Amino acid sequence: MILKAASGVCRISVSPAGGIAKLSRGRRLVTLTDARVRRLHPGKVPGGDVIVIGRGEKAKTLATLETVLSKFSELEIDRSAMVVGMGGGVVCDVAGFAAATYHRGLDLCLAPTTLLAQADAAIGGKSGLNLGGYKNLLGAIRQPEAVVCDVAFLKTLDDDEMRNGLAEVVKHGAIASLPLLRFVEANSAKILAREPPALKRLVSDSIAIKCAIVQRDENEAGERMKLNFGHTVGHALENACGLPHGKAVGIGMVAECELAVSLGTASRADARRLAAALELMGLPTGMPGVGSDVLCEAISRDKKRRGGELILPLLAGLGKCKLVRVRLAKLKEALDDLD
Amino acid sequence: MILKAASGVCRISVSPAGGIAKLSRGRRLVTLTDARVRRLHPGKVPGGDVIVIGRGEKAKTLATLETVLSKFSELEIDRSAMVVGMGGGVVCDVAGFAAATYHRGLDLCLAPTTLLAQADAAIGGKSGLNLGGYKNLLGAIRQPEAVVCDVAFLKTLDDDEMRNGLAEVVKHGAIASLPLLRFVEANSAKILAREPPALKRLVSDSIAIKCAIVQRDENEAGERMKLNFGHTVGHALENACGLPHGKAVGIGMVAECELAVSLGTASRADARRLAAALELMGLPTGMPGVGSDVLCEAISRDKKRRGGELILPLLAGLGKCKLVRVRLAKLKEALDDLD
Repeated sequence: MILKAASGVCRISVSPAGGIAKLSRGRRLVTLTDARVRRLHPGKVPGGDVIVIGRGEKAKTLATLETVLSKFSELEIDRSAMVVGMGGGVVCDVAGFAAATYHRGLDLCLAPTTLLAQADAAIGGKSGLNLGGYKNLLGAIRQPEAVVCDVAFLKTLDDDEMRNGLAEVVKHGAIASLPLLRFVEANSAKILAREPPALKRLVSDSIAIKCAIVQRDENEAGERMKLNFGHTVGHALENACGLPHGKAVGIGMVAECELAVSLGTASRADARRLAAALELMGLPTGMPGVGSDVLCEAISRDKKRRGGELILPLLAGLGKCKLVRVRLAKLKEALDDLD
Repeated sequence: MILKAASGVCRISVSPAGGIAKLSRGRRLVTLTDARVRRLHPGKVPGGDVIVIGRGEKAKTLATLETVLSKFSELEIDRSAMVVGMGGGVVCDVAGFAAATYHRGLDLCLAPTTLLAQADAAIGGKSGLNLGGYKNLLGAIRQPEAVVCDVAFLKTLDDDEMRNGLAEVVKHGAIASLPLLRFVEANSAKILAREPPALKRLVSDSIAIKCAIVQRDENEAGERMKLNFGHTVGHALENACGLPHGKAVGIGMVAECELAVSLGTASRADARRLAAALELMGLPTGMPGVGSDVLCEAISRDKKRRGGELILPLLAGLGKCKLVRVRLAKLKEALDDLD
């Protein structure tokens, strides 16, 4: 697949990651990864310099960026080199922002190793760092030269990490593809057993859906916001309760679907079917014990807020979605109904 | 003037800065400036929030960025706001990089207050921060929405600051416009007396030259490198001797012109005329007491280095310039000849 956008053209493949050496076309490579990926998949890490960064959201900081860029400088990396990000969303974010900013821009190849990163985070050119407790408060939008999604990496994920990605796959189905949602419903055993053909289908379909949207709206002026379905409430749950991303987004989708039902764009049956698909994938759907005032305080800091309103993706039935301006007070009502 | 490039379209005017409120079209403004600009030109600072940052290259750090972005977050700045950078190159760099990265990109208006920033730094969409002693080790390329160059700001500059800008004006003449170089030669008294019509001519001509080049090569894959004339040796002199930018670039141009003479693309007469124009503007032209080995060590860290070679802009007579691959060793020879 090829994603063409203003900031660059990205070649995306769902295949073994061995192709990175070929993609480099003889350029010097500097790979960012984490200790776990390096230990579990030593044969996948390409030749050249390797920089190991910390794991988890706590590593997505300006301090990590400073360490990485200082290391680039020490290694005398110049603009002819290519940065490789081999890891989950955190590694892809740090590698993406480092490549976007070092010497004002180096080529980048992402080799995502989690389902979340393969089906979502590594596609579309966004990178981000956290600051002051806010996720992705800063970042860039810049297409990598290539993304190589090798589903062999997914064998070593723990169940929580798998669920993080499965939430995004269900999201892609819910906003844009009833066939993908049906595939999830009909093949849950194969998916949970991590059979490679089933995983390839989830990753390929997700990439196709995301590419189509990003190509039409790279800078998130409109349509790309559809990909935030479940994420407004989801990010607030991550901040307020420390839930993992997948669980938070799963519950966020249920909550935001409740808003769609109350506004009449989705039916009660749609909401039940969405919740059932999430439960099939092992994701929770019930709101944890957190007040709507706490969530709304976190949401008021959301990047998607414009003045006193939010632009929210609302399901218009399953497999479709539209963007609607919603007052924060209206979202609070829907959250209160769920409490 | 309008600069159209892949990363955006920028409207540039050489006129009083009062137009910023109009440019904002009712959007919330957050202005970055420094204490000196705020004190000397209180009437020029637009309404809205104001963030004061430190002065000088030492303020162009990730620590300053973190402070600014945290302040944006505290002020609940969202994507509907516009960032204004009102100050010299440092303020424009920090404002540019903050606007490029906060929430992955806010609109930006630059109101440069120094000749260096009006004639050069604020034009072309580059921003940068220093790291580990290296200038602009990280940064972004992204066009501001608007740049407003008000020559009234230039009255309050000290002579060293004026010279910083005059070096870039001479550079623009040397690489692209014999008429601009002739204007400098024929009007040195008016320029040094800071007569507004003379300053407007210098700024307008410089902007036109830079826009034409940036439009053809925003990402510095080729032609934009011509704007680095004098800067390879110049940046090394700044790093190694702490010279101010203008003086360093002036001496850098003389040194790089020496290389052009030795390679036969410029004549000894061209070199003498360039040095004379710099001296008319009060700029030094003699190499300070620093070894070529020290300079070459600094140059080896230059962003323009690709592998063992540098791509250098070499004068091809005055008013013209071409890009040539030069081995670092050859540049060292030219520097040795100047010692």
